[in-house]
Amino acid sequence: MEAISTSRRKRILSGMRPTGKLHVGHLMGAIENWKRLQDEFECFYMVADWHALTTAYREPQEIRARVHEMVLDYMAGGVDPERCVFYVQSDVPEIAQLHLLLSMIVPVSWLERSPSYKDQITQLGSDIATYGFLGYPVLMTCDIIIFKAQVVPVGQDQVPHLELCREIVRRFNGFYGPVFPEPHPRLTRFAAVPGLDGRKMSKSYGNDILLADEPDTIRQKMRNVLTDPGKVYKGDPGRPEICTVYYFHKIYNQAEEKEIFEGCHSGALGCVDCKKRCSEAIVRGLEPLQERRRALAANPGAIDEMLREGGMRAREVARETLAEAREVMGLGAPRI
Amino acid sequence: MEAISTSRRKRILSGMRPTGKLHVGHLMGAIENWKRLQDEFECFYMVADWHALTTAYREPQEIRARVHEMVLDYMAGGVDPERCVFYVQSDVPEIAQLHLLLSMIVPVSWLERSPSYKDQITQLGSDIATYGFLGYPVLMTCDIIIFKAQVVPVGQDQVPHLELCREIVRRFNGFYGPVFPEPHPRLTRFAAVPGLDGRKMSKSYGNDILLADEPDTIRQKMRNVLTDPGKVYKGDPGRPEICTVYYFHKIYNQAEEKEIFEGCHSGALGCVDCKKRCSEAIVRGLEPLQERRRALAANPGAIDEMLREGGMRAREVARETLAEAREVMGLGAPRI
Repeated sequence: MEAISTSRRKRILSGMRPTGKLHVGHLMGAIENWKRLQDEFECFYMVADWHALTTAYREPQEIRARVHEMVLDYMAGGVDPERCVFYVQSDVPEIAQLHLLLSMIVPVSWLERSPSYKDQITQLGSDIATYGFLGYPVLMTCDIIIFKAQVVPVGQDQVPHLELCREIVRRFNGFYGPVFPEPHPRLTRFAAVPGLDGRKMSKSYGNDILLADEPDTIRQKMRNVLTDPGKVYKGDPGRPEICTVYYFHKIYNQAEEKEIFEGCHSGALGCVDCKKRCSEAIVRGLEPLQERRRALAANPGAIDEMLREGGMRAREVARETLAEAREVMGLGAPRI
Repeated sequence: MEAISTSRRKRILSGMRPTGKLHVGHLMGAIENWKRLQDEFECFYMVADWHALTTAYREPQEIRARVHEMVLDYMAGGVDPERCVFYVQSDVPEIAQLHLLLSMIVPVSWLERSPSYKDQITQLGSDIATYGFLGYPVLMTCDIIIFKAQVVPVGQDQVPHLELCREIVRRFNGFYGPVFPEPHPRLTRFAAVPGLDGRKMSKSYGNDILLADEPDTIRQKMRNVLTDPGKVYKGDPGRPEICTVYYFHKIYNQAEEKEIFEGCHSGALGCVDCKKRCSEAIVRGLEPLQERRRALAANPGAIDEMLREGGMRAREVARETLAEAREVMGLGAPRI
């Protein structure tokens, strides 16, 4: 399939649904990953606002703001629109057109048998069972193949989705010739970041530290963080290896990490003090990102301009691919 | 819903799948109907090439040519791009975008229970059961509502489709406010035109006279037309009221109609002679249309220009509607 690519670096597609402000878990996982990839690959990074509608179609007032906040976090976190193509999905109408074309060849049975389709209906109720939600893998396939991306970073749970995407590509190529490369998964494993209550950090658990949290908010949240329940008083020996606070010391307070570990372990360091030092380390650690975030937020016009620029670069590629798909499917060039 | 319309004349949407060259039955039915409507309504007439893919996705080589031939027949038949908005569906990418938006709110169950979905799978086999085919009513709804058409000419068999479209509109307006008018059906009844074998004229029966048929082809076809089987020899009395040839005399040979009727009835007129006179009448009757058709066909650039013009006018309206839909669904204005 090498002939299909025109770029020397392999092309990657990755996307995030707009969920609003991101938290420290996202920074360690998604953002750091995007940053790493942007130098190794030709990266297309998408804020998937159309996908957001598959589950949030009853909360329209949220979506636009969520896109904005998430974009701020990504950019402040180091995703660099100069080194990748960073765009909002619905700014690329070619994706919707390819979606309509592709929909014509995807058997409904392939979509119905997708395990996550059934799962989600069980979990979220039948309100979710819309035509668009059923077609989620078709749209995801378009997101990828419109840029002829060869690589897609996925978690283990998304591998079946990508397999379905590859099946769709094979079917298309079988009908019309080898237009699209089959995208390969790049398995990405993140150690889950613990949240304030010790469970995985997640917005839906309300146990997160947002990248945009004010210092006092971070301090407040850290006062309530769950520590080793076996260590009740200062003097009690603790188990830093199971403590969320220690986890954050490792990330944001590497200079004092060893001392903290020993102090907790011996009991010499009390949790109140330990948390305070951790809060300050996090506040310091996030300060550069927050400063960039404030500067970006103060200039929404520039953000829009960067997204516009990214969208235009995305559309250049998308337009070519769409033209090929239209051609082989018999529609030919549009007249407009 | 009056507030929604900005036009004094009511707006109509009608579309045809590109089936290639049209026949006399289409002229009497579809084309004459479009001609009549174009002065009474603000008409949006669409060549539905995306819809063609729902059933013809394995015959891509056919579609573009079919669009071209059908457009020639419509224009030669009197559909006037100056008096209506005549365009090719896939030239209006806003339709694909609205389709994606609308797909998010349409329950799969509404589509699965559509009787024509089940029928067609039974008739055409499970190859037809694609995601796009299941979503046919969603795309049809977009075709209509992107122009906020209030009226849709339909045959009795399409009334359930339009009812589903109205349900989708009510659901959308219920979620997001009164954006779209509910389109009303305008029942159109055509007397079926008989084909050469006495059954309804249809391309799939191979019993048609094409609008573009050469005079000698018409004469050849008319030699084989089925007449009253009770009239074997000249001199036998015939029943013109059941004869396809007489049917065409009524349309193309009104001056001689009475004489033909009587001659057939009395037996004085033989079928060979009757058919010859009918052939010549049809050839004469189609001549002005064929002349316009030849002139149009000789200038494909002008056809493309007219379709481009129509597409641009369609897109002007479509863009506004899409912007409204994006706004109420929370995506806001595109950045590009």
